[in-house]
Amino acid sequence: MIRPATPADVPTIMGFVRDLAEYERASDKVVATEPLLHDALFGDHPAAEALIAEQDGMAVGMALYFFNFSTWTGWRGLYLEDLYVTPEARGSGVGTQLLRHLAGVAIDRGCARFEWAVLDWNEPAIRFYDAMGAESLDDWRIRRVSGPALATLAGRG
Amino acid sequence: MIRPATPADVPTIMGFVRDLAEYERASDKVVATEPLLHDALFGDHPAAEALIAEQDGMAVGMALYFFNFSTWTGWRGLYLEDLYVTPEARGSGVGTQLLRHLAGVAIDRGCARFEWAVLDWNEPAIRFYDAMGAESLDDWRIRRVSGPALATLAGRG
Repeated sequence: MIRPATPADVPTIMGFVRDLAEYERASDKVVATEPLLHDALFGDHPAAEALIAEQDGMAVGMALYFFNFSTWTGWRGLYLEDLYVTPEARGSGVGTQLLRHLAGVAIDRGCARFEWAVLDWNEPAIRFYDAMGAESLDDWRIRRVSGPALATLAGRG
Repeated sequence: MIRPATPADVPTIMGFVRDLAEYERASDKVVATEPLLHDALFGDHPAAEALIAEQDGMAVGMALYFFNFSTWTGWRGLYLEDLYVTPEARGSGVGTQLLRHLAGVAIDRGCARFEWAVLDWNEPAIRFYDAMGAESLDDWRIRRVSGPALATLAGRG
């Protein structure tokens, strides 16, 4: 079963975010906290939305997403920030159901695209996304400025 | 001079979007229209914001951006969808000024990150972003489902 997340799910989602970051070899980069996540999902000006996948009343997966915008299409898109399925539930179709559900959300919200990012060494995920019919935008690279470099760039270093 | 875009700038922005897409060898992918762009920037529920760079009262560049969200930081980020400077104005510091201004917007809006994407063959842009102190997230690949594949994934094909 897939349902929208509620405030009571925030500790579960925070745990899934940490588990996913560990899998992605980036545990040290998780500085988010439950209050920040609560505010982002359920505050006055939500920055993102989340879905929970359940099996036998237990949360076994989640998808956290927001809406981006494309100047080429002129429309919003749905951007999937995190997709996570617990190790025990992997291979039982939970990820597929979450992606299918999200594609429906994208259509219902008038999105032209459904996008996400994957690490180039995460072969199980890449095979899964290939099987789901997702194209790979291999010639684009993400650039980022954060922390002290952001203040320096802004001339406030 | 850098200033927020106004509804009167929409035709200029649409032209810059087309010029940038041509430079990026993707003219055929631009299906956006001026009414769609107007609605995205100045409608009841804006999906993006834009800045215009002027020299001698002429628009010579623009930046179009929106806010994303990171589960690792727990904060919003500023995502730069399009950065464009006219061929005549390139090399005069307009792109630098736009990036510096955007870094300030990111800080003022409480963003943890300032991000964008660049084509891996766009060497002048890559050199410019390197010089601005932007890291490159080389191990991430963007995946996308759109058009008929999106309807198929949602089971509405």
